[in-house]
Amino acid sequence: MTEPAYVAVDWGTSSFRLWLVGKDGSIVAERRSGEGMTTAAQAGFAKVLQTHLDATSAPSDIPVIVCGMAGARQGWIEAGYIDTPASLASILTGAVAVPDQTRDVRILPGLAQRSKDAPDVMRGEETQLLGAIPADAKGEQIVCMPGTHSKWVRVLDGQVTGFSTFMTGELFDIITKHSILSHAVAGAAEMSADTAAFEASLKAAFAKPQLATNLLFTARSGQLLHGATAAGAQALISGTLIGAEIAGALSSAGQGASITLVASGRLQALYEDAFRALSLTYQTIDADAAVRRGLSAAAEAIWFTNESKS
Amino acid sequence: MTEPAYVAVDWGTSSFRLWLVGKDGSIVAERRSGEGMTTAAQAGFAKVLQTHLDATSAPSDIPVIVCGMAGARQGWIEAGYIDTPASLASILTGAVAVPDQTRDVRILPGLAQRSKDAPDVMRGEETQLLGAIPADAKGEQIVCMPGTHSKWVRVLDGQVTGFSTFMTGELFDIITKHSILSHAVAGAAEMSADTAAFEASLKAAFAKPQLATNLLFTARSGQLLHGATAAGAQALISGTLIGAEIAGALSSAGQGASITLVASGRLQALYEDAFRALSLTYQTIDADAAVRRGLSAAAEAIWFTNESKS
Repeated sequence: MTEPAYVAVDWGTSSFRLWLVGKDGSIVAERRSGEGMTTAAQAGFAKVLQTHLDATSAPSDIPVIVCGMAGARQGWIEAGYIDTPASLASILTGAVAVPDQTRDVRILPGLAQRSKDAPDVMRGEETQLLGAIPADAKGEQIVCMPGTHSKWVRVLDGQVTGFSTFMTGELFDIITKHSILSHAVAGAAEMSADTAAFEASLKAAFAKPQLATNLLFTARSGQLLHGATAAGAQALISGTLIGAEIAGALSSAGQGASITLVASGRLQALYEDAFRALSLTYQTIDADAAVRRGLSAAAEAIWFTNESKS
Repeated sequence: MTEPAYVAVDWGTSSFRLWLVGKDGSIVAERRSGEGMTTAAQAGFAKVLQTHLDATSAPSDIPVIVCGMAGARQGWIEAGYIDTPASLASILTGAVAVPDQTRDVRILPGLAQRSKDAPDVMRGEETQLLGAIPADAKGEQIVCMPGTHSKWVRVLDGQVTGFSTFMTGELFDIITKHSILSHAVAGAAEMSADTAAFEASLKAAFAKPQLATNLLFTARSGQLLHGATAAGAQALISGTLIGAEIAGALSSAGQGASITLVASGRLQALYEDAFRALSLTYQTIDADAAVRRGLSAAAEAIWFTNESKS
């Protein structure tokens, strides 16, 4: 077994993932749990981390690099933000050391766009970005990171020039749980298979995003008048929100910019479907691999590169 | 006191309003309660109605005209829908008698738009429409009836040619209660006074409705980065949803069509603000007066006009 060099942690709002990384870059051990920021703020961040370090038998002298909501104001310690425009490399330099730990623990900062009319923040996705886009990338990239709050990032010659958050995932969640449309989707499986309904509403909302909150209501009226199914209603809500998101995200992108999708699992399949249906060019990078690569790049820069050793 | 001629009832999902109307058209007595469809479906519609009739000492032989959700499938009896395109007058002809009552009780039908790609329904608002637009009106009218589910109706020479429902009010409600933005609005008074924030987000969403779900998120990022207030966040959410609604509703309207706003109270003030900020021409009709006038028109047509007596 390769000797452990450092620990990488992706600490989100509701999830905790830890990788023990070997000197050759291989994964020696891995931990996943639901002890995200919300849970850890109660249980204690240091305690949660130590439990998982013990479970992987991580040597007591190797350092830990953390990204995500552990660095939020309501997290472990506030890791602040790097302001856009920002080079991908500058994200690494903002890592903040957690004081009074027996080992070196550092949390990566988020990204902030401080413009008055389009203020925006991300925390965690900047590390995926680091792992998804080579720091020496040339040209314009449009990076889509779908989720509870989907992030669309514009990268030009390795500089993050701006980004936009769309509340797609959270809106889908509260609309299907708390609005009148909860009745329309009742009984549908979590992952709808109604591709036709998804693509039809996706295209309708992409073409006329101004009608999005009207299209949503057709999930109900379509059932009342045409007997549409619960799976169809769920696909319609999803397609409408994603179609409007893509229309909005691309409205400020250069024509013909290629999209880099950073996603895994269900969201990957959904957004790939969407891009294909809209005839958009894209490439996919696995989100889990991207965040691990981003954390590794940070660890390398902080602890294992002579010029940036600190 | 004028002799009572009939009883008019606006029976919504969560509200019940009753007027005892005199032979000269004056209001003899009025009742308001929270016994809407949801409550009445448990307590019994006939019983709820009788309690209020007793409280107004309504003579036992005068008839009752009802509009709203009491006529829904899950209501008292299903009053069905009149299909668009529909003349305003045809709404009156679809009233359905409730069987086995000691007096003549009739429920007005809703309106349905059965097109496959834009199915839509209304129930209750068609009666407001009846009271707001003269049956012999000429030209095109765009009628806006804001609410939980805002209805925009196109009327051409007294014919309802089509309509669209926007989930504005309900989205505002669930976003401010159940999403991450609930923290951003915590502590704001129910009716926000931040007119500047409302108008700025209204104009932004009207100009770029494709960015609506992104603009919503700025309620959070604006607080994190610029210390925006809870009242400002609430106004931003409201302005964004209403701006996108108006952009969508007017995208299919003829240029220069004048808007008839049918609203009361807080919603009237909010939409009048919005139309003024967007330099749109409008006239306002009080929603309470409109529904009473619509119910009266139905009662007159059914019981008090010789040719349509039944």
